[in-house]
Amino acid sequence: MQFSSALLENAVNEFTKLPGIGKKTALRLVLHLLKQETASVDYFVQALSRLRHEIRFCHRCHNVSDADICSICSNSMRKRELICVVENIRDVIAIESTHQYNGVYHVLGGVISPLDGIGPEQLTIQSLVQRVENERPSELIFALSPTIQGDTTIFYIQKLLHKFAIRFTTIARGIAFGGELEYADEMTLGRSLINRQPVEQYVKTNT
Amino acid sequence: MQFSSALLENAVNEFTKLPGIGKKTALRLVLHLLKQETASVDYFVQALSRLRHEIRFCHRCHNVSDADICSICSNSMRKRELICVVENIRDVIAIESTHQYNGVYHVLGGVISPLDGIGPEQLTIQSLVQRVENERPSELIFALSPTIQGDTTIFYIQKLLHKFAIRFTTIARGIAFGGELEYADEMTLGRSLINRQPVEQYVKTNT
Repeated sequence: MQFSSALLENAVNEFTKLPGIGKKTALRLVLHLLKQETASVDYFVQALSRLRHEIRFCHRCHNVSDADICSICSNSMRKRELICVVENIRDVIAIESTHQYNGVYHVLGGVISPLDGIGPEQLTIQSLVQRVENERPSELIFALSPTIQGDTTIFYIQKLLHKFAIRFTTIARGIAFGGELEYADEMTLGRSLINRQPVEQYVKTNT
Repeated sequence: MQFSSALLENAVNEFTKLPGIGKKTALRLVLHLLKQETASVDYFVQALSRLRHEIRFCHRCHNVSDADICSICSNSMRKRELICVVENIRDVIAIESTHQYNGVYHVLGGVISPLDGIGPEQLTIQSLVQRVENERPSELIFALSPTIQGDTTIFYIQKLLHKFAIRFTTIARGIAFGGELEYADEMTLGRSLINRQPVEQYVKTNT
């Protein structure tokens, strides 16, 4: 692509550094910004700059936050004795969007993956142990990816915390709602047979 | 989507104002920025801010520019007597990327479209007339969209400039390279038959 302006070229190149944005998309976005009022571009730019400079991570659960303690941890309506352990911020947003969970979170920052150089010390596991010691929750819900790394992380944490009287659970795996049996992979279908649930319970949770 | 941080929510909302960026993509982009070094986010933000505040439009051809006269117009190697009339900046970039054109441009800023409230006075047509009077180019190449609006604009400009000894041309329309005849629309195929060219010329331009 040939540009007659270094400012334009620079802005396009910066946009292409974002994931999934190619040259043509970057150009479209930049030309869009060029057509906007100066004030609204200033506002856009400010929102990104403030985000990067002012964002903090909750001291308790490591979720993104505007203060030292995030709005979920500081909400007195939420059950402190229920901690949902997730990989990242995106998982918190996904679970919050279901409106089905009323406990608090613990964001690990990833899962144990020796091949990628991620051991327990790269994650917030020590902070979770400390938290369990201090807060004595009644249940830890693991909502991690159903991979070997995710399972390893669950076993590791469970072993660390075995001396505490905590219930360890994981979110249910199975056939998705609206999913057709014939298209499900064998692993999921097999596990959903092993973990079958009484019809009374199914009726109770789905009506 | 439920966010635990107003800064995060704000940044996501700002991104969704860009064309073709939905909530999920916006979140992905924002979380990507959050993971970057502060300095590189500052650089990104600065590039966009500088673009909007410092960009200028060439006094001669109305292309985007870093100075009063753009790098194409001020390039002494380019033929001043050849002016390619285009709708917008994107067209200039597209033509420049072919490396086949050595003249200068005139960016109209759109085409005449009474239904959209765009008349000749909303475009840079008056400036083009002035330019032809001053610079006396030998040829005007119209590279506009092959629509009624594009054709109207060509006829309008040609009528305005009929007293000058200029050659008026339009870029060739026809079957695209690698295009199969059976998939071409009738209009394009029909026109490409009417505007057929001698094989000698075809051989000359394609070898």
